Amino acid sequence: MKKQEKQNNSKLKIIPLGGLEQIGMNITAFEYEDSIIVVDCGLAFPEDDMYGVDLVIPDVTYLKENIDRVKGFFITHGHEDHIGAIPYVLKDVNVPIYSTRLTNALIEHKLEEHDMLKKVKRKVVKYGQHINLGCFRVEFIRTNHSIQDAAALAIYSPAGIVLHTGDFKVDYTPVFGDAIDLQRFGEIGKKGVLALLCDSTNAERPGFTDSEKSVGKTLDNIFSEHKNTRIIIATFASNVDRVQQIINSADKFGRKVAIEGRSMVNIVSIASELGYISLPDNILIDVDQLKNYPDEKTVIITTGSQGESMAALSRMASGMHRKVTIKPNDTIVFSSHPIPGNEKSVTGVINELMRKGADVIFEDVHVSGHACKEDIKLIYSLVNPLYAIPVHGEYKHLIAQAKIAEELGYDSDHIKILSSGDVLEIDENGAEVTGHVPVGNVMVDGLGVGDVGNIVLRDRQRLAEDGIIIVVMTLENGTGQVLAGPDIVSRGFVYVRNSESLMDEAKTVLDKTMDYCMDHNITDWGKIKNEVKDALGDFVWKETKRRPMIMPIIMEV
Amino acid sequence: MKKQEKQNNSKLKIIPLGGLEQIGMNITAFEYEDSIIVVDCGLAFPEDDMYGVDLVIPDVTYLKENIDRVKGFFITHGHEDHIGAIPYVLKDVNVPIYSTRLTNALIEHKLEEHDMLKKVKRKVVKYGQHINLGCFRVEFIRTNHSIQDAAALAIYSPAGIVLHTGDFKVDYTPVFGDAIDLQRFGEIGKKGVLALLCDSTNAERPGFTDSEKSVGKTLDNIFSEHKNTRIIIATFASNVDRVQQIINSADKFGRKVAIEGRSMVNIVSIASELGYISLPDNILIDVDQLKNYPDEKTVIITTGSQGESMAALSRMASGMHRKVTIKPNDTIVFSSHPIPGNEKSVTGVINELMRKGADVIFEDVHVSGHACKEDIKLIYSLVNPLYAIPVHGEYKHLIAQAKIAEELGYDSDHIKILSSGDVLEIDENGAEVTGHVPVGNVMVDGLGVGDVGNIVLRDRQRLAEDGIIIVVMTLENGTGQVLAGPDIVSRGFVYVRNSESLMDEAKTVLDKTMDYCMDHNITDWGKIKNEVKDALGDFVWKETKRRPMIMPIIMEV
Repeated sequence: MKKQEKQNNSKLKIIPLGGLEQIGMNITAFEYEDSIIVVDCGLAFPEDDMYGVDLVIPDVTYLKENIDRVKGFFITHGHEDHIGAIPYVLKDVNVPIYSTRLTNALIEHKLEEHDMLKKVKRKVVKYGQHINLGCFRVEFIRTNHSIQDAAALAIYSPAGIVLHTGDFKVDYTPVFGDAIDLQRFGEIGKKGVLALLCDSTNAERPGFTDSEKSVGKTLDNIFSEHKNTRIIIATFASNVDRVQQIINSADKFGRKVAIEGRSMVNIVSIASELGYISLPDNILIDVDQLKNYPDEKTVIITTGSQGESMAALSRMASGMHRKVTIKPNDTIVFSSHPIPGNEKSVTGVINELMRKGADVIFEDVHVSGHACKEDIKLIYSLVNPLYAIPVHGEYKHLIAQAKIAEELGYDSDHIKILSSGDVLEIDENGAEVTGHVPVGNVMVDGLGVGDVGNIVLRDRQRLAEDGIIIVVMTLENGTGQVLAGPDIVSRGFVYVRNSESLMDEAKTVLDKTMDYCMDHNITDWGKIKNEVKDALGDFVWKETKRRPMIMPIIMEV
Repeated sequence: MKKQEKQNNSKLKIIPLGGLEQIGMNITAFEYEDSIIVVDCGLAFPEDDMYGVDLVIPDVTYLKENIDRVKGFFITHGHEDHIGAIPYVLKDVNVPIYSTRLTNALIEHKLEEHDMLKKVKRKVVKYGQHINLGCFRVEFIRTNHSIQDAAALAIYSPAGIVLHTGDFKVDYTPVFGDAIDLQRFGEIGKKGVLALLCDSTNAERPGFTDSEKSVGKTLDNIFSEHKNTRIIIATFASNVDRVQQIINSADKFGRKVAIEGRSMVNIVSIASELGYISLPDNILIDVDQLKNYPDEKTVIITTGSQGESMAALSRMASGMHRKVTIKPNDTIVFSSHPIPGNEKSVTGVINELMRKGADVIFEDVHVSGHACKEDIKLIYSLVNPLYAIPVHGEYKHLIAQAKIAEELGYDSDHIKILSSGDVLEIDENGAEVTGHVPVGNVMVDGLGVGDVGNIVLRDRQRLAEDGIIIVVMTLENGTGQVLAGPDIVSRGFVYVRNSESLMDEAKTVLDKTMDYCMDHNITDWGKIKNEVKDALGDFVWKETKRRPMIMPIIMEV
């Protein structure tokens, strides 16, 4: 950006770099003249057609190109879709990270795994604290969510105040800490807020979101009704309050608790070190010690509530867990709700557990961490922003929040539904999308970041669908005579032992094709390969109605 | 089965060959001495990890091996999970098919597509009619379901009466035809029923299932609230009553109706030929004619309510439909509920439609076709069977029905949860699983039936995950000297243009491996291939943490 342009540029720019077409990969840049700050830095989990991809991170080309203006990251809470891309993005955009205490601990854990802890500056921020960075001032405001220490951010810019809720719910009776700081929302609202960026996840759901504490009562009931069996409870590792409530029930009913699953063990250990969970003396036991207690005196808290195939509960269900074997009388509780897309795997695990004779409770032992319609209305009423900018959700969720804003009297000029990459220029006099910056999915597969792109994915899709047929031959240098082959090898196409005659016929087709090439003096390798692809492709389609990848390879001696 | 064995065999055998571990692939054999009859012959849709598989049909080895005793198929209704495997299974087990009129028409349509219409005997059966076949007598009883002409079957055997509900709901006010014949259920119940095989799909849901007619009212409301826009409604092609109600609403509000999507067009044409749908004069127009009418005077009824990528609505959403372009003011209605596993694709289509500005209504314009808890209790009370055998559902659904039976006073000896392949021998004195017959998934991919098995699937999964690296080389006959190569080609592994140095290093690894083989006189091709696989596999894992399929190919001249 050149100097002379800046003179006229006294608007705030809001640039979402992800998170608006999907649940996940939340990252938004706020830019005012020489200063850029970024809120959140999350990952997304791969879509079904992203074969072999482990996770997806945002394309931050825009931040890289403006690295000298980027002042810092502000992280609203410690969920993967808000912190997961930090180790990748900070490799290129290494600026300080500001977050609350637990969030910071989770970020540090992540940085350590990537051997980056010493390379990145971090700062723990308290609720109510203000951070000055460039021409921005950012205040952390207490909210509630399905992870502790969640914060909304009030971003004070010369163009006005923007309030970003992060992911939040309104919980008047939280398990740990205080309720969302509604007073401060109101106080800032009174000052006049330019724009509200508000969580849309539950904007389609009527009513209010229940308090996390209501799950505690449900858990007590389950414990009271299942006094004679072992209890195994699966939930989200990051929901420390849920784990706390399970431990409370266990304590009340005189049971020992074993924690199982890597991420669950990690988070419970971090949370207990920092004092975010309170553990009655000697209540925790190692999974190995379970055998020393009668079943009805134990509880296992485990990962796997989403049916993830490698998680502890799934391994128990399939009989592949080394230490825990499901017994016919176990009571197994899913204290969770399937995230969209996971319904079938969750059901699969439930079926497997039931088949082993377990009693499985999988409904109504969970509350959401996101604000429902009436909660969203409450926040709008307190903040009373000039502009409504729904964030965090798929398009239909953003639309649902836009409808709420409409109900509250906002006209369409004051509701801004953005797409990732949009540059929204905004001040008191107006808000419009004036440009677009590059955005996209950067796929992480193993150690590779971004080396799997659309071409590789398309190949994987095709290979997955119908497999591959490889045709190899050796030609004589100079004459082009076939010295060896053409030979056929296939993988993922047909079970060859049952399809010998098909493969024999395919070989005949190839021999004829090569005869044709010889007869017609076709010696160019590219042309020979095309003849092979066409002839074999047609034959295979006619015989099988399949389109395997056909890959001719020519060698020369 | 040998003659002498039969003397002692006076029990009825119930042998489910599919449908008990899943929704789909319903097929159950009933055997008494020399007679076998089969109820339903359905397909299942492939699981997510069945790459490239089009559909799945049951393994009917048991029927083939006992072909001389198999007397006929009785089909309860025309859904794919009850008729879809007929063209495949009847190739080997060609016996007559008995079904009601609409069901028969749908079966005939299917047979015609497979050029098998002339080869298979069919018989249309009326409600109340009895068919004698071997030592069985089978009566068709009227039920309600999300397709017309659904039937329960009373199977009279020398060992007693078995009642098979098929898929059903209790609809006191059906759109077409009469309500389920509860009187006959009661009458047969009074005679004494040995076993009830009852639909479990909704056994987890409390209360009663709403009448199909209630959707008509919802549709009227939608039409009345959207008088100024075009309306596009997606629903299940086979739900002719739903289509009828949409047409009724269209008629009431003076709109023309265009039908879109191949299966929708087929079924509406079959249903209207047979009189199962009543079309007001001139209400139907061709999709091409839509342009001749104002938007607010048209309705499009379309396939694609499950987000199927090639269905008409999905093509409209992605802008790939040749004849229908979504407009910003369209009202689009999903008169359906996502089948488990389809949630994400349905949401994807909703998001795309909303992004084009359409108003999308996707909740509460649907009722289920399956009986809920209280309906199931009603059927049990009318039939009062000696044994409860929950069918049609995943394991958790069967368990849910078992719990209902328990509530009604059945003890565990009189509730039989079967697995596919179980041979349940049953009479008034007892019921127990005495054996097991072969069952399984036969995968259909293109024209191939059963040629994709676990080996091919495993290869496809591996190819999908990390792609393939092919290593080719030409060796000299006799000496084993490398004349050409080793060369490397990869697909679905990395984007080669960005990974040139990786591929160069891999080539170096290969050259070293071949030098090692030469130096150590390793000339056996199998051993050379293993050396290549190991060396390259280790190198690739170290560099990328991926495990592509590695495929060495050696030629000789």
